[in-house]
Amino acid sequence: MTQNKTTTAKAYAAASATTPLAASTITRRAPTDQDVQIEILYCGVCHSDLHFVRNEWGFTQYPAVPGHEIIGRVTATGKAVKKFKVGEVVGVGCLVDSCRTCPDCQAGLEQFCNGMVMTYGSADKHLGGGTLGGYSQGIVVTEDFVLRIPANLNPASAAPLLCAGITTYSPLRRWKVGPGQKVGIVGLGGLGHMGVKFARAFGAHVVLFTTSPSKAADALRLGAHEVVISKDAAQMAAQAGSFDFILDTVAAVHDLNAYINLLKRDGNLVLVGAPGEPLAIAAFPLIMKRRSFSGSLIGGLPETQEMLDFCSAHHITCDVEMIRMDQINEAYERMLKSDVKYRFVIDMATL
Amino acid sequence: MTQNKTTTAKAYAAASATTPLAASTITRRAPTDQDVQIEILYCGVCHSDLHFVRNEWGFTQYPAVPGHEIIGRVTATGKAVKKFKVGEVVGVGCLVDSCRTCPDCQAGLEQFCNGMVMTYGSADKHLGGGTLGGYSQGIVVTEDFVLRIPANLNPASAAPLLCAGITTYSPLRRWKVGPGQKVGIVGLGGLGHMGVKFARAFGAHVVLFTTSPSKAADALRLGAHEVVISKDAAQMAAQAGSFDFILDTVAAVHDLNAYINLLKRDGNLVLVGAPGEPLAIAAFPLIMKRRSFSGSLIGGLPETQEMLDFCSAHHITCDVEMIRMDQINEAYERMLKSDVKYRFVIDMATL
Repeated sequence: MTQNKTTTAKAYAAASATTPLAASTITRRAPTDQDVQIEILYCGVCHSDLHFVRNEWGFTQYPAVPGHEIIGRVTATGKAVKKFKVGEVVGVGCLVDSCRTCPDCQAGLEQFCNGMVMTYGSADKHLGGGTLGGYSQGIVVTEDFVLRIPANLNPASAAPLLCAGITTYSPLRRWKVGPGQKVGIVGLGGLGHMGVKFARAFGAHVVLFTTSPSKAADALRLGAHEVVISKDAAQMAAQAGSFDFILDTVAAVHDLNAYINLLKRDGNLVLVGAPGEPLAIAAFPLIMKRRSFSGSLIGGLPETQEMLDFCSAHHITCDVEMIRMDQINEAYERMLKSDVKYRFVIDMATL
Repeated sequence: MTQNKTTTAKAYAAASATTPLAASTITRRAPTDQDVQIEILYCGVCHSDLHFVRNEWGFTQYPAVPGHEIIGRVTATGKAVKKFKVGEVVGVGCLVDSCRTCPDCQAGLEQFCNGMVMTYGSADKHLGGGTLGGYSQGIVVTEDFVLRIPANLNPASAAPLLCAGITTYSPLRRWKVGPGQKVGIVGLGGLGHMGVKFARAFGAHVVLFTTSPSKAADALRLGAHEVVISKDAAQMAAQAGSFDFILDTVAAVHDLNAYINLLKRDGNLVLVGAPGEPLAIAAFPLIMKRRSFSGSLIGGLPETQEMLDFCSAHHITCDVEMIRMDQINEAYERMLKSDVKYRFVIDMATL
């Protein structure tokens, strides 16, 4: 742990699980030789941010600064930094370091490294305490965990690609979603709306499942070929056994068997939302059609860069609603009511 | 439905869900041009037989004749039959027909065909009523659903290959279990003991999980490299995150999360036993290591023949305990107490 030449940065922090986020000042390390110092321009608001500041996962240290959908501008680089120059627009997602040596790291799957360092809520090996996220003026990140943001992407709309984007891109790629396939996306929130865009861009026939008839028109606009109201038993029954792949983005407890029954033989339902309670999974629907139920977690650094480059080539960004920093607590309440189309992004100039 | 020139056969049948199996006489169709008529020599006793005769799945028609691990001798062939001759030793497994035209049938995966005809308990399109299984003197089966039994396999010990064998062989093949992999088999019963033999023959490092310390020595004899007593938390913890693949053969409700946590990143737990109640599956262990939970159902006809030929080449059969037909009700009670090493096989000469 080295603490020489630190800098301070304005931030929004929670002092406890029951305290609103409020203006604060935090410490950032001086860049090491491998570090990139970043002035944060935009930060997306992920549901994980809310779980974290309210200590809903039980590991939060306070003061807590969330935010892992970070777009910023390079303000300084360590002398060993090769990939980035002062002035460039860059991104930082959910990870800021990993062990670099385990099989997962060697495979570019740093998200599975047991030594991964999350952008917020991990142990900060430089300064002690917990790592502090993107609701702040600036951040210092080792070069290998900084991403290039293609120049043609709107930087504010690109911010949520760093979590919502890669979380949906990665499983669609891993399970080889493409032309000739019928793909379901469950839920039209921050994750789901990106799942629709990516699945469509990969050439699949895309069906959006939602409990809200009011979302149907928007789903079609975003790229879905069909919308199924999941509360309508007849609509669900009409889709039985017809899907190659279903990406479930709903973090609340819900009936997954209803979706597993929509899969073809050898189809896969992949969960990226994480309900806290165990899910009741019936054995027969898996066995009788050799179906699978899997999980997926963000993506590694190489795939995150690939996703950003894909977005550049296909003109894909997120649908966002810009907020001021001082609107964050209100934004959390709206997020809890799914009242956002489809991701809040904080304009950090308002900090 | 044609009913001309039927024959009768002695059998053991249940008259109701609460009646023991007892000597009976059933009707078999005369062979059509495509049919093979078989004198049954041996029939394995599968736990499904018990579920079926006691109507535990709710679809049993009475009188009910179970048995789908059938070894017999060809006694007559229809004039269009090409693959089999009178006098040959042949096998019949869980299926006796399918639609032949759907994508599953085209892929040789008849077990997933919506029109599959099970050896017992399906509608009999020739005679009406339900199909009647192998606890009988003879059976008539369309050529394409009859299997060659290699001459070097002991026919009695080969009988359970038709269900217990293919049920474990198929998922180990589909998920490409082989050298360099660490593979778990959960449960050492009729299925599990075959899972151990196949996983070992495929070159994997094999770990058998059992609740019974008394089974450890036998598991090692059957081919396991290690035995883990699953009730021992320390033994389980020592295996965390180390498995490429786990085949779970336990049909009773049990804690699958304990096994999912033993998988490596991208590992797969495949269930072949089918508990009637939904299983409580935690989302985080799947998400945090991109693990999968899948089901698998017997195998198609081509793979069942492949399995028999593999058994011939590798001198693999089942460990069986021979019983007389009139011991079947007692055998069921012993099976419920897991008091069998590892499969009962009925000597049909005792019928």
